[in-house]
Amino acid sequence: KNRARLLINCADQPGIVAAVSKFLFDHGANIIESNQYSTDPHGGEFFIRIEFEIPNLKEKAKELESDFTAIKEQFALEATFKYVSEVKKIAVFVSKEPHCLLELLWEWQSGDLMADISLVISNHETSREMVESLGIPYYYIPANKEIRREVEEKQKELIEKYQVDVLILARYMQILTPDFVKTYQHQIINIHHSFLPAFIGAKPYERAYNRGVKLIGATSHYVTNDLDEGPIIEQDISRVDHRDNAEAMKKIGQSIERSVLARAVKWHLEDRIIVYGNKTIVF
Amino acid sequence: KNRARLLINCADQPGIVAAVSKFLFDHGANIIESNQYSTDPHGGEFFIRIEFEIPNLKEKAKELESDFTAIKEQFALEATFKYVSEVKKIAVFVSKEPHCLLELLWEWQSGDLMADISLVISNHETSREMVESLGIPYYYIPANKEIRREVEEKQKELIEKYQVDVLILARYMQILTPDFVKTYQHQIINIHHSFLPAFIGAKPYERAYNRGVKLIGATSHYVTNDLDEGPIIEQDISRVDHRDNAEAMKKIGQSIERSVLARAVKWHLEDRIIVYGNKTIVF
Amino acid sequence: KNRARLLINCADQPGIVAAVSKFLFDHGANIIESNQYSTDPHGGEFFIRIEFEIPNLKEKAKELESDFTAIKEQFALEATFKYVSEVKKIAVFVSKEPHCLLELLWEWQSGDLMADISLVISNHETSREMVESLGIPYYYIPANKEIRREVEEKQKELIEKYQVDVLILARYMQILTPDFVKTYQHQIINIHHSFLPAFIGAKPYERAYNRGVKLIGATSHYVTNDLDEGPIIEQDISRVDHRDNAEAMKKIGQSIERSVLARAVKWHLEDRIIVYGNKTIVF
Amino acid sequence: KNRARLLINCADQPGIVAAVSKFLFDHGANIIESNQYSTDPHGGEFFIRIEFEIPNLKEKAKELESDFTAIKEQFALEATFKYVSEVKKIAVFVSKEPHCLLELLWEWQSGDLMADISLVISNHETSREMVESLGIPYYYIPANKEIRREVEEKQKELIEKYQVDVLILARYMQILTPDFVKTYQHQIINIHHSFLPAFIGAKPYERAYNRGVKLIGATSHYVTNDLDEGPIIEQDISRVDHRDNAEAMKKIGQSIERSVLARAVKWHLEDRIIVYGNKTIVF
Repeated sequence: KNRARLLINCADQPGIVAAVSKFLFDHGANIIESNQYSTDPHGGEFFIRIEFEIPNLKEKAKELESDFTAIKEQFALEATFKYVSEVKKIAVFVSKEPHCLLELLWEWQSGDLMADISLVISNHETSREMVESLGIPYYYIPANKEIRREVEEKQKELIEKYQVDVLILARYMQILTPDFVKTYQHQIINIHHSFLPAFIGAKPYERAYNRGVKLIGATSHYVTNDLDEGPIIEQDISRVDHRDNAEAMKKIGQSIERSVLARAVKWHLEDRIIVYGNKTIVF
Repeated sequence: KNRARLLINCADQPGIVAAVSKFLFDHGANIIESNQYSTDPHGGEFFIRIEFEIPNLKEKAKELESDFTAIKEQFALEATFKYVSEVKKIAVFVSKEPHCLLELLWEWQSGDLMADISLVISNHETSREMVESLGIPYYYIPANKEIRREVEEKQKELIEKYQVDVLILARYMQILTPDFVKTYQHQIINIHHSFLPAFIGAKPYERAYNRGVKLIGATSHYVTNDLDEGPIIEQDISRVDHRDNAEAMKKIGQSIERSVLARAVKWHLEDRIIVYGNKTIVF
Repeated sequence: KNRARLLINCADQPGIVAAVSKFLFDHGANIIESNQYSTDPHGGEFFIRIEFEIPNLKEKAKELESDFTAIKEQFALEATFKYVSEVKKIAVFVSKEPHCLLELLWEWQSGDLMADISLVISNHETSREMVESLGIPYYYIPANKEIRREVEEKQKELIEKYQVDVLILARYMQILTPDFVKTYQHQIINIHHSFLPAFIGAKPYERAYNRGVKLIGATSHYVTNDLDEGPIIEQDISRVDHRDNAEAMKKIGQSIERSVLARAVKWHLEDRIIVYGNKTIVF
Repeated sequence: KNRARLLINCADQPGIVAAVSKFLFDHGANIIESNQYSTDPHGGEFFIRIEFEIPNLKEKAKELESDFTAIKEQFALEATFKYVSEVKKIAVFVSKEPHCLLELLWEWQSGDLMADISLVISNHETSREMVESLGIPYYYIPANKEIRREVEEKQKELIEKYQVDVLILARYMQILTPDFVKTYQHQIINIHHSFLPAFIGAKPYERAYNRGVKLIGATSHYVTNDLDEGPIIEQDISRVDHRDNAEAMKKIGQSIERSVLARAVKWHLEDRIIVYGNKTIVF
């Protein structure tokens, strides 16, 4: 595939789009999609994502990037080139509940997930059979608060061994250490089973039931060291009523969790998300 | 109109429905709608709402209620008869933003609000012209933290004078005293401009924007003395994205606030809501 | 399990609820849930669904039903007792696209489908491996317009052999003969990949794309001999925009199809659906 | 205001964005927002909408447009410059039901409608008082099938007199002649009270009720000479169930109609809509 994505952010200033689009034109690129956003056209931060194709991209990539240095310096850009041919590698972390993992495996099987699921890591054996039946390695690493660091050492080794790009916490019910989170900044995607910032922390469905809410939700976000406070990627909700107890909410919620996480992962894989402060821009 | 509603709650036990429906049948009632719910059929709390018609209900109402005493005692019921012919009287409280008030006036004008809007009370003059042009009295009572009690005395006088049944806080930005709230228990309906329990308190749109949420919402609830913690009646949400700043969220949110409050008020007027603990059952 | 459901419809008339609830009380039933609806309290059609428990129901079921005959005749009721212990048997029909089948298998695996999936019938071999890996028999019956009757004979034999109660067309792309449909009235549930009555018939996503709609949908309905005109059980939609071509709509739509069909099947299995004319009442 | 919008469509070809953005940069423009779309990057149709600001735009507008001719010719563009300072003038057409008109008046009053409502034309007197109380001229022109041409002559005179830019059919229940529609191509916005293409034509709620749908909707579209077949701008739906008769659906639907029409009008006024064939691109 000759397709790439150029992601830029910088201080908003006149002439960026003109310069970048001239650059791509001069290098023979055919623009497929382009999205931009400015927090404020007068002195704000500017973001652009351009998806383009260049014939024989593989041979030209190096030159392209080095030619781009001039523009990068002129406008003081932060810029990244992402190549569709470099398929991202995923490690899925899961505890007991398999529904989010299943959704990802399913998308992967039907060819809708533009990534390799390289391995699954779990602190339970529950999903081993299903995962291995698809030919994906399954690593059982028992975990608890006391042995957090040892556990994470093993996990890091695996992540390195499989050259993983993205860590997906598909209902992985262990808290990660600050060091671990820092190592994989903006590379860890979590699904939280509530409409954040409502019901941060444990047992959100029980608490939703006790509060008597009329809608429940799920939130996918990048993991930071503030619990459930990382940049939100996607959220959705479903209606409930007085007949739904915590158990019913959990079942209804699983369906939301599945689709919210799947959308967030898809956008991440397509390099559609730019993290800016504690927010995401999703192009 | 010969229509009434019977609202019952009690400990769940066999035979209630049989007894109540036999009672209504013996009194010549035609059941229009009936809804029931039990928190747990084995030892839980039981709720039923029956809407029915009896020819010449007005003459028979007294006898009906006194005849019902036997069943009430047998099953230790809490029971209320509500008569559709006794149209409820509403006092709308509003501060500066008129959109929720407008929605209610509109529904009232088009005959969709089964109630009288007896008066509007405001701590601003903003909406006077519009309200008075519809022939509804408008009372301007300046308010602030320091003079809360004096303000509420005046409000209470008006509520008494107009024999008000329901107080609707249609974006009334003053906190009520515990005494006031206690006097009108389950009679004060508020609209909060967030998806509770997220963003309790002031400036929810600003905080939603700062948190980077992907959905914003509104919540209508009965007012209790825990700020924004009263029994939730209805909630709804709308999608936002990174392009929506706090101002844009506010505009989008107004439309949700309008419809959420309107639904909550409608259900209250139709006696569809039973408050149980800090939750509502909406039949 | 000692749980049963009583489904009744009849001409609306006073005293039905009183009689039925007295009957259940006299037979020691504990009512779990009860829902009723009348098309018109004055001379309309009346529907009620009562879910209840009776200790040792199995031994008493026969007596219960025979005792009920008196009430049945008095009010000219159509009434059915359904026993939760009699687990329904499902035959899933599928063509090439497996997503709806997968959703049902998944719900079944996680214990959320109160039924046995007895067999899968397909005119393609696509899903054999997955189905058989779960221990469910898979029957490949090639089908086309010319051999419709022979195909259906084989299908009928299997349905009889497995004593199937419900046929689910989980994206089965063959039209059934009037005879077949008649044999299984209100027992065949289809998922149509559009928001009916829009885009009846073939290729709804292509036509939705060509029409330029901003929302796409899916509809689950009982199959009748008017193509896509049977009683609708459930519908849902998802937002699309100008960037979504027919292929993208198809992917988005699959997710709606899955959840709409799953809900419809669940309600059918819980005996929550009463067909009245060409409509459904879903309690 | 120094703000303008440039709308372009043309055959997709490399270099357009580079050329246009260089042009705007050279003319001192500050780009506020930019959206683009291509039906197919290889030989498809390309669309771009750029919102920008230029100091002292009013004096420079003429020069800007004439300078742009070169690019226009080079790439064979269809291009339009729209100036925010040229506030659009609206004529609202309404029959009996006022809810959509009311929504527009309300938005206008609260300053959310970037347009002047220059006049209201109706074949009924119903809304006169409300409209005139806001200082907007109200023209009562009785209408029926037989006198269609005479009626439209009068309407055309008013449209000319008030120099109207947009005609909004806010539940105007008269069919327009082909000549009239042709005169105001892509300038007439209608709200249809169904989820098109379901229930084209008259009495959609009655037909939705008869079909037993579980969702009802509304559609806003540009008027063409194929009844209810014009390019769709926006659609939305609301859930209904078996308890909702046609009358209830109508009430629920009014709320959807209001918000769908309001969104469509807003996008039109912001020049966000490009009609392409029988579809809209909404940026």
